[in-house]
Amino acid sequence: MIYVDAFGGDYAPDAMVKGAVLAVQEFNREITLVGHEEKIKEVFDKNNLSMDKISIIHAPEEITCHDESALAIRRKKQSSLVVAANLIKEDRNSVLVTAGSTGAVLSAGVLVTGRIKGVKRPALGAVLPARKKPILLMDCGANADCTSEYIKQFASMSSIYMKYVMGVENPKVALANIGSEEEKGNKLYKEAHQVLKETEDINFAGNMEGTEIMNSDNDVIVCDGFTGNIILKTIEGMGNLMKDILKDVFYTNTKTKLSYVLTKNVLNKEMAKLSSKRYGGAPLLGVNGGIIKAHGNSDETAFKNAIGQAIKFEENEVLEKIKNIYAK
Amino acid sequence: MIYVDAFGGDYAPDAMVKGAVLAVQEFNREITLVGHEEKIKEVFDKNNLSMDKISIIHAPEEITCHDESALAIRRKKQSSLVVAANLIKEDRNSVLVTAGSTGAVLSAGVLVTGRIKGVKRPALGAVLPARKKPILLMDCGANADCTSEYIKQFASMSSIYMKYVMGVENPKVALANIGSEEEKGNKLYKEAHQVLKETEDINFAGNMEGTEIMNSDNDVIVCDGFTGNIILKTIEGMGNLMKDILKDVFYTNTKTKLSYVLTKNVLNKEMAKLSSKRYGGAPLLGVNGGIIKAHGNSDETAFKNAIGQAIKFEENEVLEKIKNIYAK
Repeated sequence: MIYVDAFGGDYAPDAMVKGAVLAVQEFNREITLVGHEEKIKEVFDKNNLSMDKISIIHAPEEITCHDESALAIRRKKQSSLVVAANLIKEDRNSVLVTAGSTGAVLSAGVLVTGRIKGVKRPALGAVLPARKKPILLMDCGANADCTSEYIKQFASMSSIYMKYVMGVENPKVALANIGSEEEKGNKLYKEAHQVLKETEDINFAGNMEGTEIMNSDNDVIVCDGFTGNIILKTIEGMGNLMKDILKDVFYTNTKTKLSYVLTKNVLNKEMAKLSSKRYGGAPLLGVNGGIIKAHGNSDETAFKNAIGQAIKFEENEVLEKIKNIYAK
Repeated sequence: MIYVDAFGGDYAPDAMVKGAVLAVQEFNREITLVGHEEKIKEVFDKNNLSMDKISIIHAPEEITCHDESALAIRRKKQSSLVVAANLIKEDRNSVLVTAGSTGAVLSAGVLVTGRIKGVKRPALGAVLPARKKPILLMDCGANADCTSEYIKQFASMSSIYMKYVMGVENPKVALANIGSEEEKGNKLYKEAHQVLKETEDINFAGNMEGTEIMNSDNDVIVCDGFTGNIILKTIEGMGNLMKDILKDVFYTNTKTKLSYVLTKNVLNKEMAKLSSKRYGGAPLLGVNGGIIKAHGNSDETAFKNAIGQAIKFEENEVLEKIKNIYAK
């Protein structure tokens, strides 16, 4: 079953409900929405949406951005996120899609669903909308302090995700670093390079510098969660800066305004490709259940895409495949 | 004296010679070019440039990108960089401007000029062309492994540089981090936050996330050299990506080509503001001599600007001021 946490994102519950309806149309699969039943039904009624193949499990509480994550997961047992996390715990083949805050989703994964035996630290990915193809950045904030062993596990788990969910044959894994030569980096990254080189279940492509990230041929970038978060947010900040600059440029005078009219269709299409919404969500890997985290500002299309990823995660038994690595 | 290493950058020696001539015109100061005399004179002759206020010190060797940095500094005693570094060692009030490779400049600073007594690790800055004002990122690659004590010293030295060279009264220093709250970050950054909070000679503004960097009110961002290099190159990569996207957008069809004609003046002006050439160079701080490192791709304007920074460095006795912190 695919469970959708109907609360938690910026546009809850509208985006989740509409996204689920779009997903039923596109993927023809049953979906269960988890959250305050009346509020969810209101969205169906108001928008005259079909409940075909959609069921609701009532969860009256909400975790808000004011809640301390771990505390909220422990105390708000009736919140949509905790109820949904318990559902995937009961049925390990099911997958949860949520736009809850990073901290809350991480806590739910670790405290409710639990870790996979043998996994040192679960890690949260982000799918970067790079120029040539989507790139999974892992970890992007779950583990601020890492060892090379953690990074190795991120690489193995991410490779399985990219293969079976994103459909990439033999995904190329790069190590974020400050130079392409293997002796570059700080102590952790020099060591991680050697460990990755000797990891048999990944296709290691060496180091990758910051300049290459958004224009790379690689499929996965691994790094510690501190570095990953810095990369992710720096990219986001530069994207916002470019949008601001373009707005200012086109608003300058009559000529530039006309210029915008002539180019806006093409420009908006290209800029949309850089949107984090394009690929829906990114996985929390290493927990004993399928969890796809959608961006907080996900709209219905982003949610539909995230549900599509969850379906592939379930159908291809990604959780089992990851467990198998560490069962050996 | 201002010494200019006439070799080392992508456009050597043309950019350095022309930059020096522009600097004499703008700042009316004597400048010494260091490098292969004949080759330098050729540039003057070919372009019919005045040698007014400009002298040359002959240094026949060149350090190329194929040289291993520390080895080249030790062996190529007659290279423009080593000769120039020895000149500022003999006269500590003089300042060197160079577009040599990061590794070579760092090695020259540490091996030839030497460290300031009390400074744990010299650090190399980069001036980020952020939206509201230039921001000094320190360290951007000299020290891949840092302690909180090093980061504290980067903050103090950078504050003096921003005040006396960039003219910023009471510069605001932020710590790069993955969240604004002081308990955020990995072990090093949690500790660095506490150390910076208690550092009296800086104006500490707290943590800054990646999203804020290019749109920040701060004047200095401090971090370890691994993180700084990741930030710097990620910004550079995103800038290149945006240029590529805009090129593709404007080349799409007749309408978009016309759109470009209408907007190119304004657009190019705005994009030029994001160029690393705008602020000329960034300092290597903590070594016992003034060294301004210009970007490898610096043109004559960038070089003129870097020379301008070197002049302020010398006039305001920045080296002395930094030494005074650690003489206490």
